[in-house]
Amino acid sequence: MTYDYDLIAIGSGPGGQRAAIQASKVGRRSAVVERRLELGGVSVNTGTIASKTLRETVLHLTGQHQRAFYGSSYRVKADITFDDLRARSRQVIEREIDVIRSQLTRNHVQVLTGAGSFVDAHTVALTGGGLPPRTVTAESFVIAVGTRPARPAGVDFDDRTVIDSDGLLQLGRIPREIVVVGAGVIGVEYASMFAALGSKVTLVESRRSILEFCDAEIVEGLRYHLRDEGVTLRLGETVVAVEPHEHGCVTQLASGKRIASEAVLYSAGRQGAVDDLGLERVGLEADERGRIRVDEDYRTAVPNIYAAGDVIGFPSLAATSMEQGRVAACRALGEPVESLGKVQPIGIYSIPEISYVGRTEEDLTEAGIPYETGVARYRELARGQILGDTHGMLKLCVSPDDQSLLGVHALGTDATEIIHIGQAIMALGGTLHYLVNTVFNYPTMAESYKVAALNAMNKLRDIERIG
Amino acid sequence: MTYDYDLIAIGSGPGGQRAAIQASKVGRRSAVVERRLELGGVSVNTGTIASKTLRETVLHLTGQHQRAFYGSSYRVKADITFDDLRARSRQVIEREIDVIRSQLTRNHVQVLTGAGSFVDAHTVALTGGGLPPRTVTAESFVIAVGTRPARPAGVDFDDRTVIDSDGLLQLGRIPREIVVVGAGVIGVEYASMFAALGSKVTLVESRRSILEFCDAEIVEGLRYHLRDEGVTLRLGETVVAVEPHEHGCVTQLASGKRIASEAVLYSAGRQGAVDDLGLERVGLEADERGRIRVDEDYRTAVPNIYAAGDVIGFPSLAATSMEQGRVAACRALGEPVESLGKVQPIGIYSIPEISYVGRTEEDLTEAGIPYETGVARYRELARGQILGDTHGMLKLCVSPDDQSLLGVHALGTDATEIIHIGQAIMALGGTLHYLVNTVFNYPTMAESYKVAALNAMNKLRDIERIG
Repeated sequence: MTYDYDLIAIGSGPGGQRAAIQASKVGRRSAVVERRLELGGVSVNTGTIASKTLRETVLHLTGQHQRAFYGSSYRVKADITFDDLRARSRQVIEREIDVIRSQLTRNHVQVLTGAGSFVDAHTVALTGGGLPPRTVTAESFVIAVGTRPARPAGVDFDDRTVIDSDGLLQLGRIPREIVVVGAGVIGVEYASMFAALGSKVTLVESRRSILEFCDAEIVEGLRYHLRDEGVTLRLGETVVAVEPHEHGCVTQLASGKRIASEAVLYSAGRQGAVDDLGLERVGLEADERGRIRVDEDYRTAVPNIYAAGDVIGFPSLAATSMEQGRVAACRALGEPVESLGKVQPIGIYSIPEISYVGRTEEDLTEAGIPYETGVARYRELARGQILGDTHGMLKLCVSPDDQSLLGVHALGTDATEIIHIGQAIMALGGTLHYLVNTVFNYPTMAESYKVAALNAMNKLRDIERIG
Repeated sequence: MTYDYDLIAIGSGPGGQRAAIQASKVGRRSAVVERRLELGGVSVNTGTIASKTLRETVLHLTGQHQRAFYGSSYRVKADITFDDLRARSRQVIEREIDVIRSQLTRNHVQVLTGAGSFVDAHTVALTGGGLPPRTVTAESFVIAVGTRPARPAGVDFDDRTVIDSDGLLQLGRIPREIVVVGAGVIGVEYASMFAALGSKVTLVESRRSILEFCDAEIVEGLRYHLRDEGVTLRLGETVVAVEPHEHGCVTQLASGKRIASEAVLYSAGRQGAVDDLGLERVGLEADERGRIRVDEDYRTAVPNIYAAGDVIGFPSLAATSMEQGRVAACRALGEPVESLGKVQPIGIYSIPEISYVGRTEEDLTEAGIPYETGVARYRELARGQILGDTHGMLKLCVSPDDQSLLGVHALGTDATEIIHIGQAIMALGGTLHYLVNTVFNYPTMAESYKVAALNAMNKLRDIERIG
């Protein structure tokens, strides 16, 4: 039997795009199914790109980085409106959609507009998109439908005062006070953005800690900075009700506390967007959070159906989703491809931003792996002073045995960029020796690697000298 | 015979600091001689730090990066004065001097204030600094006196309209027009800064090309951007006279052209600051540009006297000077140390900035080494769009034999930071394979490595397929 396509990716976000393009690159007929008119999925339209553009605009308009020089009340624009923020996001989103469309076209990937639903393991029914219902068939599928914000029962979302992250760009104005429920990556990113904009932010999280997968010292740095920006952290607290009032709402916590605010932003997890996918017709099932289970090849329980991206769970980052999509497509088509490297970066676009590769201190201690740390504080770097970044830092976790890097953790300006220096060194087997003997451009943030390496080296020498 | 110190560094710039600190770190008694009251040398006070801070202030106040969104006439501050620029530079310079002082103190390096002049190969006479003349002795010396701007005979520098780069911070106001004479690193950096500030800039250079050591495609990108910002390039032209007038001056070129401007900035090379060093008393001689010749160990013709930093010539970058100082100190003291790695980065803080490691296309072609290129344009990256950087690019020069990186060239935002990713890969023997199989944070500029690697990979595959 011949199918319409060799591979169909369901969803045109980072995972789906890459899967379809990869299939095409190795000479197969591929398509992406997209239910919305705009390509790019949540990543472009309300997620990664939208929020990172918002963040950049916030950084610019609030003059965040300039405050060390011009005082803490310095603003580039005194009255920042949500329209200021939206305008730039819309521009970038439109361009990014253009880029995606041109990449798909250039790679001969067909775009099938409509909502896709499995009929059987090789057939998907398409509805909507202004076309009559129809079916398409493929040898293999990659499910990359992504997620939508989880909306807890009993909370009355009105897209005006009680919103989720997808509704954020619809906000009428910058709220004077905002309660952010859920301190995951998205919650923390938006909490720090609103704090930078001058909103009074309360961040509520039912766990006692935030971003638990990150290194504790880095998270403490972030927490310190958030508080310094006026954010109230309510950890180990749960929301029992949000009461609407005329000029805002009151959030009621289980502990009895009441918080008045103009807006409440729910970022309490996301739910796989699998509802209309007809998984049951191919014998697949998502878990209670809508996630689809896959093996290390990104294959579901159905041999010709793969899944990639946010719909399979952690880390749910665009960068990783792309690679998952690429690997899934190769596996599905029997093409040679390597598994993803072990040294994958995590990037969190809070203010200040966080990025890391490898293992945390907590991780290493728990595993009984000895390490020494080397730390560079940005305020000791010429570049840190020039940019006015006084809180940032880079930390290396180093093996005392062979001086290899076990983990690299960065907080502050360009953290998500410079982490890739450490990643390359880890992946290619470099050690402190490389860093100590390398010339870094001056003044740069990258120089922090050398400063941190010298710090680690001195500590290791002290141990040798005394011990 | 016992000397006062094991090592004295003459000059407290990057090279001298590192030499003295290194000596101290290995348990030797060391000192730096500094003729000025401020530590840090030209690098901090009028060079690297001063100009990079100026640049950052310019980027911020002019809203350079925001123009893609708000139009080309967008300015954060409408009337930028030189006081705006100076204030921040002064702040950063003061902090940096503090950092240097504290590093020297922490490392037990003595600071000897005064101008140093050799009496013999182990003795330096100190004068000035508010102290009576005295002599100090040392087993070894590292000359790290740096450079001063070369002032061609017949040009009447008045520190008001005809200035050199050291006098720049004294400028009364931002000139409506400025002629920059000399398109070396410093000339290009200041030309692009003044262009960003809205000055009408004419850049005069006697050679027909600029920044010849950089990759030609990158330099063409910079030239295109400079012209786009209104800079007039007068290459292959020499200045024969600068006539002072009431409201500025007229620069006369050998070709007969006359250029009227409010100010003329000479950046026609720098001269080793060796005049009062008493080199003749130890049998040393500087060349006509004041440079001291050293061997690969940074040793001069006098066995116990070394030299490092700008005074020994190219590349005259702070980053490299530091390493030269460190290596020189170790060699002088008979301590083990590795030579500087072959993969040293070059960073040029023009707008847009340039950075590279390894070989250029021209270099490789001339050496008969085949290569393929892989290019990523920032405008195709999500991060490039978010930042509004539409002209930047990253180029990899790749060996078709083993897919190793022969050179990495970047133009645009964060070029000086992300170049260190390529540097690590080159130094540690990584190949395209690493880049293609690596997850990069999204959206980042670092992602350009992956895009460029895929581009190179596709070209190499085409050769295999067709050839």
